[in-house]
Amino acid sequence: MNLIQRQTQSGLKFLLTGFVAIFAVCICSVANAADPLASWNEGPARKAILEFVAAVTDKTSKDYVAPAERIATFDNDGTLWVEYPMYTQALFAFDRVKALAPQHPEWKTTQPFKGVLEGDMKAVGATGMKGLMEIVMATHSGMTATEFEQEVSTWLATTKQKKFDRLYTELVYQPQLELLAYLRANGFKTFIVSGGGIAFMRPNSEKIYGIPPEQVVGSSIVAEFQVKDGKPVLVRMPKIDFINDKAGKPVGIYEHIGRRPILAFGNSDSDMQMIEYTLAGEGRRLGLFVHHTDAQREYAYDRKSHVGTLDKALDQAAANGWVIVDMKTDWKKVFPEN
Amino acid sequence: MNLIQRQTQSGLKFLLTGFVAIFAVCICSVANAADPLASWNEGPARKAILEFVAAVTDKTSKDYVAPAERIATFDNDGTLWVEYPMYTQALFAFDRVKALAPQHPEWKTTQPFKGVLEGDMKAVGATGMKGLMEIVMATHSGMTATEFEQEVSTWLATTKQKKFDRLYTELVYQPQLELLAYLRANGFKTFIVSGGGIAFMRPNSEKIYGIPPEQVVGSSIVAEFQVKDGKPVLVRMPKIDFINDKAGKPVGIYEHIGRRPILAFGNSDSDMQMIEYTLAGEGRRLGLFVHHTDAQREYAYDRKSHVGTLDKALDQAAANGWVIVDMKTDWKKVFPEN
Repeated sequence: MNLIQRQTQSGLKFLLTGFVAIFAVCICSVANAADPLASWNEGPARKAILEFVAAVTDKTSKDYVAPAERIATFDNDGTLWVEYPMYTQALFAFDRVKALAPQHPEWKTTQPFKGVLEGDMKAVGATGMKGLMEIVMATHSGMTATEFEQEVSTWLATTKQKKFDRLYTELVYQPQLELLAYLRANGFKTFIVSGGGIAFMRPNSEKIYGIPPEQVVGSSIVAEFQVKDGKPVLVRMPKIDFINDKAGKPVGIYEHIGRRPILAFGNSDSDMQMIEYTLAGEGRRLGLFVHHTDAQREYAYDRKSHVGTLDKALDQAAANGWVIVDMKTDWKKVFPEN
Repeated sequence: MNLIQRQTQSGLKFLLTGFVAIFAVCICSVANAADPLASWNEGPARKAILEFVAAVTDKTSKDYVAPAERIATFDNDGTLWVEYPMYTQALFAFDRVKALAPQHPEWKTTQPFKGVLEGDMKAVGATGMKGLMEIVMATHSGMTATEFEQEVSTWLATTKQKKFDRLYTELVYQPQLELLAYLRANGFKTFIVSGGGIAFMRPNSEKIYGIPPEQVVGSSIVAEFQVKDGKPVLVRMPKIDFINDKAGKPVGIYEHIGRRPILAFGNSDSDMQMIEYTLAGEGRRLGLFVHHTDAQREYAYDRKSHVGTLDKALDQAAANGWVIVDMKTDWKKVFPEN
C-alpha cells in the first residue's frame, strides 16, 4: 500500500466513523423524540402511566374518557420541585422578614421574628402554628396583589438553593415536566393543587411547568377590593382564607376545578385525601406518589421527615393501588440540564 | 313564438329565477359565515367589540396582547341568560323548598318557608337577607356535591320559564353565544364571573356556553371532605364561603383566575367593580353592560328594577368609556331558534 492508498484508506475510515457517529446521533434523536417520558426508566411506574393514558384516550376502550374530563392534578412541593430541607415559600418568608426588619425594630426582641433574624430555627419552631401564621401575615399581606407578585418574582429570580447552587425554579423535576407535557399532548388539562400559597406559585407556573395561573389551586389569604388614589386594587389582608392541604385538597379541587380529577400525583401523606377523592370516581383512575429515595441526586426522606412526610401513604399504597414512584430507580434524570 | 318556444322561454325563466334564488342564498350564507357576530346589528357596540379584538390580536398593533393574557369575564344572570322577573337560582330554591316541604312540617308555619309554600313573595321578601340565607341553606346544603349537581341538572332539564315557555337553558342570548365563540376563536379564554352559585352554574356551563366548569367563578358555600360508608365525598355545609358579587367579583377573579381580564361584560351595578378592575389594568381594555331595553323580545328594566339594577353604571358609562349594549337596537335576535 503506497502512501496515497494509505491516506485514502485512512480518509475513508475517518469518513465512515464520522457517518456511523452521525447515524448514531440520528437514531438517538429519533428514539428521544419518540419517547415522551425519556427521563423515566422502564419499570412499574412508567408502565402504569403509559397504560393509563393509552386506556383513557383510546376511543374503543371501556376506560375511554372524553378530553374535557381528563383532569390531572399535581401537588407542587416535593412533587414538581424540591421541598427539602425547607419549603421554598418558608425560605421566601424568612428572607422577607429580614428585608422588612428595619421597619420593625420590635422584631429584634419578639419571637418568632427574633429567631428568624438570628437564624435560630429551633426558637421559630417553638412558636408553633401561631408563630408561623405571624410570619406569613407579616410577609404575605399588607400589599397589593401586584406588589406581592413582584416580590415573589424578584426573589425567585435571584435566590439560589444551597445544595445545588441553582435557582429554585430550576430545581423542578425533569421527569415530571415530561409527564405534564405528555398528559397535555394527550388532551389532559394539568393543574397544580398544593398546600402552598396560590399567589406564591402563580407568577412562575406557566413559565416553569406550562401551567397557567388559572390552573393553580393553593392556600390563600383574604383579598379585598379597594380604590387607592382613584385606582382599583386588590389588597392582601392579614387573614387566612383557605388552607388547601390534606382534606382541604378535594375541597380546593371542587371549588376551583369543579370536576373530579382522573389522575392525581402527590408525594406526602398530605396528598392522601386528594388521591382518595380522585380514585373514588367512576371509571379508570390513577394515583401516584413520588418517594424521595435519592440522597445523591436529590434527597432521601419519608416516614420521619419534617417536610413532606410520606408514612401512612407508603403503608396503604399497595392495598389501594397507589403507584409509588421511586426517585432513585424510576427517574433516569432528576433535574433539567443547567 | 310557438308553443315549444314559449315553453322553452318559460323554462329558462324558471331556471333563471331558480339560479338567482340559489345565488342569493349562497351570498347570504357566505355573508353569515363571514360574520361571527351575525346577531349583532351595526352600531357602536358591535364596532367597539370588533375594533377591540382586532387591536389586541394584531401583532403589529401597540395594543397587542399575548393569547395567554386574553382573559374575558362575563356575568351570568342578565348578561348571558334571562334573569327577569326572578333569578333562575331563586326559582330553583323555591321549587326545592316545595319538594322538601313534606320532610319539614314546621315550614307550614315558619317564614320564609311559609311564604314560599303559599306563593306569598311579599312575606318572603319581608324576611330580608336572613330569610334568603335560610332558604339557600335549606336547599343548597346537606347533600353531597354530586347529589346537588344532579338536583340542579334535573330541575333545569324540566322547568320552563313562564313568559317564553322554554327551558331556562334555552333562554341564553344568541348574540352573547356568538361573542363568546368569536372571542375564543381569537385566542381568548372565556370565564363566567357571577354572583350566582358556582355549583348551580357549572353543571350546564359547558353545554350552553362552551365554558367548562373550571372557568366558572361564583358564590359558594363551604364544602367538607368526609368519608361516608367508606367512600370519600364532598358534603355541602350550611355556611356561606364567599359572595362573588360587587366588590367580591375582582376578588373572585384574583382567587380563581389569577390574572386581570382585558374584557369584562356585565349588566348591572353589581358588575361595576369587575369592570373597573378590568379597565384599571395597563394596555387596551373593554368593559360592556347589557341594557335591557326590549320589553317585547325580552324585558325592559334598569334603574328601579328589583333584579339586575342598572343605575349608577348608566350614569358613569360615558365618562368611563364603558360600552352600553342596547338590547333593542344592538341585538338583531335575542334567543337562539327553538
